[in-house]
Amino acid sequence: MTGSPLEFSSLGRRASSPTIARLMTAALENPGLLSLAAGFTDTASLPADAVARVTRELLDAAAPSLEMLQYGTNQGLGTLREQLAARLALLDGVVSYAAADVFVTNGSQQALYLAMQVLADPGDIVLVDQPSYFVFLEMLGGLGIRPRCLPVGVDGSLDLPGVDALLQTLEKSGEASRVKAVYLVSYFSNPSSRSLGREEKRGLGALFAKRGWKLPVLEDAAYRELYFDQPESTPSVFALSEWDGLPKLLLGTLTKPFATGLKVGFGLCSDREWLDKMLHVKGHHDFGTAHFNQAILERALAQGAYDRQLARVRDVYRAKRDALDSALREEELHKEGWKWHVPNGGLYLWLEGPAGCDTRMDGALFRRAVEAGVLYVPGDLCYGENPPRNFVRLSFGVLSPEQLGPAARRFSQAVAHQ
Amino acid sequence: MTGSPLEFSSLGRRASSPTIARLMTAALENPGLLSLAAGFTDTASLPADAVARVTRELLDAAAPSLEMLQYGTNQGLGTLREQLAARLALLDGVVSYAAADVFVTNGSQQALYLAMQVLADPGDIVLVDQPSYFVFLEMLGGLGIRPRCLPVGVDGSLDLPGVDALLQTLEKSGEASRVKAVYLVSYFSNPSSRSLGREEKRGLGALFAKRGWKLPVLEDAAYRELYFDQPESTPSVFALSEWDGLPKLLLGTLTKPFATGLKVGFGLCSDREWLDKMLHVKGHHDFGTAHFNQAILERALAQGAYDRQLARVRDVYRAKRDALDSALREEELHKEGWKWHVPNGGLYLWLEGPAGCDTRMDGALFRRAVEAGVLYVPGDLCYGENPPRNFVRLSFGVLSPEQLGPAARRFSQAVAHQ
Repeated sequence: MTGSPLEFSSLGRRASSPTIARLMTAALENPGLLSLAAGFTDTASLPADAVARVTRELLDAAAPSLEMLQYGTNQGLGTLREQLAARLALLDGVVSYAAADVFVTNGSQQALYLAMQVLADPGDIVLVDQPSYFVFLEMLGGLGIRPRCLPVGVDGSLDLPGVDALLQTLEKSGEASRVKAVYLVSYFSNPSSRSLGREEKRGLGALFAKRGWKLPVLEDAAYRELYFDQPESTPSVFALSEWDGLPKLLLGTLTKPFATGLKVGFGLCSDREWLDKMLHVKGHHDFGTAHFNQAILERALAQGAYDRQLARVRDVYRAKRDALDSALREEELHKEGWKWHVPNGGLYLWLEGPAGCDTRMDGALFRRAVEAGVLYVPGDLCYGENPPRNFVRLSFGVLSPEQLGPAARRFSQAVAHQ
Repeated sequence: MTGSPLEFSSLGRRASSPTIARLMTAALENPGLLSLAAGFTDTASLPADAVARVTRELLDAAAPSLEMLQYGTNQGLGTLREQLAARLALLDGVVSYAAADVFVTNGSQQALYLAMQVLADPGDIVLVDQPSYFVFLEMLGGLGIRPRCLPVGVDGSLDLPGVDALLQTLEKSGEASRVKAVYLVSYFSNPSSRSLGREEKRGLGALFAKRGWKLPVLEDAAYRELYFDQPESTPSVFALSEWDGLPKLLLGTLTKPFATGLKVGFGLCSDREWLDKMLHVKGHHDFGTAHFNQAILERALAQGAYDRQLARVRDVYRAKRDALDSALREEELHKEGWKWHVPNGGLYLWLEGPAGCDTRMDGALFRRAVEAGVLYVPGDLCYGENPPRNFVRLSFGVLSPEQLGPAARRFSQAVAHQ
């Protein structure tokens, strides 16, 4: 309305338009555009029946669980935290985790934000994999925190001697004291769909231990349960002895694989003081995630509706992965010098284009893709440093199998006209 | 679990346990304690039927609104923002506000947090009423922002010549450039239940204009619709010409008077750049409030269920106000030197004790109250500077009319044993 000359805080001055917000808006506002960009999930398979049944039970006229329409606690619903602790223990193959170490958040995104708010100041450094989750990287930018990439080999796995050399370099330059965390997207990563192997994860923990770095680790397991055939066998850092001495935050979401519109995430934190600090800031953000949504998830988990939905969407996403992969193969994209792995989980194909190719948002390929009627996420957004220009993230989450073919053709068409 | 020696950011070092979190936990964990402290709402009257009906319609097996279980946009559901804009215009008696200037948040608390994050740096100053909302004051403490109190008269109204003198003092001391916002809880304030009058609000805007201060104003209208008989006739700062030149954020909640467990708040912002900055940071907090909850509120508003519930809870809270007020009178608390106004809206009685009285959380009265089985909010928490020790906030939101009598007796008992 007015546009008066306001002064902004250092955060306000830094805040740039989050790519995710622009892509989400673009996708919603241009229904003609086929979006291989948005990290949305499959709409057709959303569990309307399960949510309807659970809410009906919660609000049953004879004996409604009225307290679920009331405020809950800042840390989250106790019975939900107990189920989360048990579920994570089962996934990790350990006896138990403590519900007292679990907290509930507005999606896993808020857990990431809280963790960074209490750990790092502007100018501090966070170690990240490459590629990494671009919303996290943008969030670091907003907070004035610098990402530093862990070296990787040609297959994308961590280059452990390279990491060791990096830690040494940081120690020598005096920057080691500014490194406040390491961030790993370790299961069917967004964007690469790669999972960290057991030996990689162990080796990384051992390196920190060897150099005496008590570095907090954020393990982002948002896609862990979105496998297509078998779960990834590597446990989280909580269950690997090499990480014993380090403060750990394992975070994830209940709603990505179930119903993103409910937005319930969580964290499991090994360090009481760190957890308390995050909860204190959460008390100022919102003093607790919507109680009703937690109650829905708690009941869906307890009744098995949650796992039935997961089994269902695994089939859905496997079929959609196949549809996108086949369509790209049919278009003979590999003949244009493009390559990709076929992932066993997650929502993404991570394509590497030929060396000279430029996929960036202000480049010709992106413009041609939009003209052809398709959106993708440029891969350069997913790098903390020295971004290569020849990667692309294609999501098969949101489009139907029938739309993925045309979307792949439009993308291939844009590529062919280079 | 481990408790290893972590380093924390400046925010992490500042974060202290939010009183609201402690009070909420204490109330939930001690069911024998009667809480006149928690700002919870009345559980028995929560709209289980309305929420059940609306969710049933949204998830109707024949034609479910599946997209409501999917991610929404960062700014919030368009149809909900349109309804909010129209509703606020109606309350203010103006033709219209723009839905594009409205954004949806995780309760009104997140709107406050976002506003402060993008406006103020540690060491900056925010002008606040006295008393003011203690969660906001604690949030300022967490962010390292200093509250500075607007002077008030004995009746609690703004002392405008005093405010003018304060602005002059700030200009002379060079601190004026550090003042980044003014925060007003202008309708049935938490904690005092007082509303700002039209002349006070106008006068304050005129003072800023006179001195050329382009100060952003945060008007917190969380309790605006929780009046008991008539709405407060004073419009928001958006509809008062004295505030025309100032950047304005009017914020509120849809769920405080409806169902707090759904946690949907909102802001209306007059300044595009300020709004964009807040949205950018929200993109990093959570990239959008739970879509499902927004859809529930949108439909409850459109169908009139929202207003029917408001009419219902107005009667409930009026009766509870009367129950608490009468019980305190019956206990002859005024003979002990206590006084209070009977509010026309909100959830609180704001009691002023005799001059020597000490209501603080580490004092004897608070301990005696807990021993007697009742919790209250010590008034000193509600002051940005020089807190008086003889105020108490008693909430009639959460206890039933039948419990309010015993709670008042326990409180009076604690007071009598001073």
